[in-house]
Amino acid sequence: MTSTDLILQGDRLALARLLTQIENESPEGLETLGALYPHTGQAHIVGITGAPGTGKSTLVNQLALHLRKRPMPGEDTPPRVGIVAVDPSSPFSGGAILGDRIRMRDLAGDPGVFIRSMASRGALGGLARATSAVGLALDAAGFQIILIETVGAGQAEVDIASNAHTTVVIEVPSMGDAIQANKAGILEIADILVVNKADMPGADTTVATLRLSLEMSGSANAHAAVEGRVGGGRKSSWETPVLETVAIKGEGMPDLADRIFAHREYLTTSGGWEIREGKRVRSQMESLLRDELVKRFLKGRPDGRFEDIVQMVVDRERSPAQAIEELLKGENL
Amino acid sequence: MTSTDLILQGDRLALARLLTQIENESPEGLETLGALYPHTGQAHIVGITGAPGTGKSTLVNQLALHLRKRPMPGEDTPPRVGIVAVDPSSPFSGGAILGDRIRMRDLAGDPGVFIRSMASRGALGGLARATSAVGLALDAAGFQIILIETVGAGQAEVDIASNAHTTVVIEVPSMGDAIQANKAGILEIADILVVNKADMPGADTTVATLRLSLEMSGSANAHAAVEGRVGGGRKSSWETPVLETVAIKGEGMPDLADRIFAHREYLTTSGGWEIREGKRVRSQMESLLRDELVKRFLKGRPDGRFEDIVQMVVDRERSPAQAIEELLKGENL
Repeated sequence: MTSTDLILQGDRLALARLLTQIENESPEGLETLGALYPHTGQAHIVGITGAPGTGKSTLVNQLALHLRKRPMPGEDTPPRVGIVAVDPSSPFSGGAILGDRIRMRDLAGDPGVFIRSMASRGALGGLARATSAVGLALDAAGFQIILIETVGAGQAEVDIASNAHTTVVIEVPSMGDAIQANKAGILEIADILVVNKADMPGADTTVATLRLSLEMSGSANAHAAVEGRVGGGRKSSWETPVLETVAIKGEGMPDLADRIFAHREYLTTSGGWEIREGKRVRSQMESLLRDELVKRFLKGRPDGRFEDIVQMVVDRERSPAQAIEELLKGENL
Repeated sequence: MTSTDLILQGDRLALARLLTQIENESPEGLETLGALYPHTGQAHIVGITGAPGTGKSTLVNQLALHLRKRPMPGEDTPPRVGIVAVDPSSPFSGGAILGDRIRMRDLAGDPGVFIRSMASRGALGGLARATSAVGLALDAAGFQIILIETVGAGQAEVDIASNAHTTVVIEVPSMGDAIQANKAGILEIADILVVNKADMPGADTTVATLRLSLEMSGSANAHAAVEGRVGGGRKSSWETPVLETVAIKGEGMPDLADRIFAHREYLTTSGGWEIREGKRVRSQMESLLRDELVKRFLKGRPDGRFEDIVQMVVDRERSPAQAIEELLKGENL
């Protein structure tokens, strides 16, 4: 039996092998992924992002535990849940391991859960691409909800999260200088805002501040405009809810799950699902095209030509733009 | 007189115009930048990164004020200081404006200071490239120290900061769950660690924790290894200092400036300066090459071909990799 068949039948070992191949960018993995591709497009991809210290891993863990206990709307059985933990802040130290151990304890042995941690060893484009590929593999393997956890505050991680169908942004109660002008951008990618550690001082103020910020930035209209449905007859805009959770005690998970399902419902009825899907594919294709073009270009060059020209730029004999111009001269692309 | 000459002579208006041209990617700007390039390579580029709420902008502001009062080692007059504030968390809301106003108040009217804010309107690669280009322009215009402020915790911002000669990472005293495994990666890019808001509870513990983390991750050796000088006769490794500051009161700035100058001294004597310069140019060139190849490729395609193939992927008629293969078939790159 091919690995494609094995994965479609839910073989975990074959799936794990594929994910490793994807991370290593092996041609075999890409081939399997290609064969699986027609079977994708079913999963609800939920991006969950927040700054370090907001309790993301705990929340994702608890949310998965909760999701495994309740059927999705219109279903009889709980969804199978995939978790992709992207940990780009540990390029050297493999910091993902601690979080994994904690997760293993709670979710180990549940065949309806599959967890994969990814550290950013290479370039960011590579991480986004690998994350997307891992999501596709889990999708094909029949996981109905895929939680993609990223460390937020950085644009790239935000990009990864916001390529999801539903983006959850986690904040914590903040002390003193509550209103961060620079949080505005993050708020606007959120479909659902969560104030975690809501048993800490300042939670109510933080919630109120976030609600006010959302109002001021007109997030509901912004979302509706993106979906292209402002002013339609049916429910035509999504108002970003601000929820309180205490993930470490599992508090607030039912409400969070409700809102995630509600957002899915909103997307499918508003046409937003297809729009996000198109956006996601487009950005993935651009990234692939970029890398492939560079690979092919450098392959056609004599060895060391690129290095030579880098050195000329270091020595200030060429500007970067002039050097690129020279490198590409005579190429009929 | 050409704009190149004007900028080399310190004309602020010409410089401001060039920076706008760079942000707009105008051909005129690129040409001027090319002409200026031989005059670059003098400035000490200092990346300053930290999560939202760590007081980065205030610290950069206060550091600039301090730097303007003291000569660098071996100089008679204080350095001219350029500030590039990269604010990628405000793609929509223009959150950079608040920080700018505060800065203007303190630094306005000092001809030895030039401030530029950049918001990430486009792709991240573009932001990194534009930041780098703005740095070059300030370098050519004779600013001896260039402070590049980025919101940290994200890999991309960390990349921008760590492309500097000296990288300063700002933390704040943390409550309770002090040791963040996922901070390890950030620690390892730091040449200087700053615990800002050091008058808040928990500062000493945070400093001690950071020092311990640095020891555990063997940062000194890691840096020495990068510089390729482990075990040399002279001072061959850099031990990342952990400093305390209260930026809002200007406390700790002399010490921070001392360490920045000491790191510069270390780099120039250890050979690290050239290594970082080479790394910086290389990553910039790769990014330029990438974009240029894509631009040329798409220009040579019939209109809508890329859109068509994106739609085929959305419809699951092709996998992304198959689609790219098809798009590139028959191309002799």
